[in-house]
Amino acid sequence: MAKLKDLPENTLNRLVIYLKVLDNLEKKRVDSISSEELALKCGVNSAQLRKDLSFVGNLGTKGVGYNVKSLKYHLKKFLGRDQEWNLVLGGLSPLGEYLLTSKSLQKDGFYFMAVFDIKEENIGKIVNGISVYSLEQLSYVVKAINVDIAVITCEEQPEVYYEAFVKHNIKAILNLSPLPFFSESKEIQIENFSFTMALTKLSYFLKNLK
Amino acid sequence: MAKLKDLPENTLNRLVIYLKVLDNLEKKRVDSISSEELALKCGVNSAQLRKDLSFVGNLGTKGVGYNVKSLKYHLKKFLGRDQEWNLVLGGLSPLGEYLLTSKSLQKDGFYFMAVFDIKEENIGKIVNGISVYSLEQLSYVVKAINVDIAVITCEEQPEVYYEAFVKHNIKAILNLSPLPFFSESKEIQIENFSFTMALTKLSYFLKNLK
Repeated sequence: MAKLKDLPENTLNRLVIYLKVLDNLEKKRVDSISSEELALKCGVNSAQLRKDLSFVGNLGTKGVGYNVKSLKYHLKKFLGRDQEWNLVLGGLSPLGEYLLTSKSLQKDGFYFMAVFDIKEENIGKIVNGISVYSLEQLSYVVKAINVDIAVITCEEQPEVYYEAFVKHNIKAILNLSPLPFFSESKEIQIENFSFTMALTKLSYFLKNLK
Repeated sequence: MAKLKDLPENTLNRLVIYLKVLDNLEKKRVDSISSEELALKCGVNSAQLRKDLSFVGNLGTKGVGYNVKSLKYHLKKFLGRDQEWNLVLGGLSPLGEYLLTSKSLQKDGFYFMAVFDIKEENIGKIVNGISVYSLEQLSYVVKAINVDIAVITCEEQPEVYYEAFVKHNIKAILNLSPLPFFSESKEIQIENFSFTMALTKLSYFLKNLK
């Protein structure tokens, strides 16, 4: 994903981590933190942290550090997490069912509005209050609700869902299927993740550790 | 994770993707592929692909391209995916239960051997043939079996699991909990991932698209 003009992807990755850590600090009722302490908790050095945060704005006070609530507020806004996003799911897989029932996604502002499936036996089911539609019904659903992000979780024929979502003008896709997708359009953003991919990075590390 | 001497992390990320795509090509019985075609499927340009693959070895034939089976074989070996890895799970969460029953992880050589939990009511349960132990029993289990990778999935008190795993000398950790962890030790590798983190990268994109 080399399409985020201005902001390097690695910076974005780190900003997302900073937000997570700040969230946790707030829960622990920490009011303020120095850039050194915050950097340590985020696995970076303080120069890197300050440089990354300079993309967000002129934050923090010299010698005083960062106000946790305020920094979190600005970071959330910068990352688009100050608003709610409508999600649809592609494929009623076991992983999909887990996501539909996840409370933490809702707490973070990500709401599943509909599920699409190509398997006849799944159409019409209701999971955690969310209806399962056939993929043919996608054109009606995108007219009725504003779909921000599509999440693909099925192991079989993920490309069928991917093509339908792109065709219906969905701009952001979280792809958790075994097959990675890439788009040449700058208007479409795809995040590819799989557990096997993450574990493979660890297996590479272990192989070279010995 | 800036600890993989010699190999840049972004290169590793791409190699993992190449392996996924090759896996899929093999399933579709594709015998050989040009670097241009393969690059397109992997979301990179062919110069990048060739440069990345030069870390793996002197592969491919000029004018002929890559043999899919052979390239996959070398890449799997390079990434440590030519062997089986023993996993333990930290926390019997819904996400944890999903991973324990996932067939694709086993197919890829990742085997859960044991689950650890701090909740009394979960100890002694058996999920998909895998026993749930108390965290106190970790010291016995690591003596009995060679634990390669620990996966943390619980939403509550993930730091309790993290500290226990590190204390018992587990070198590779996939952390799917809401709290990211970092180690300054070069002997420990941590992959932090959460669905919220991935979705936040998309919300940033959408916010800046409008």
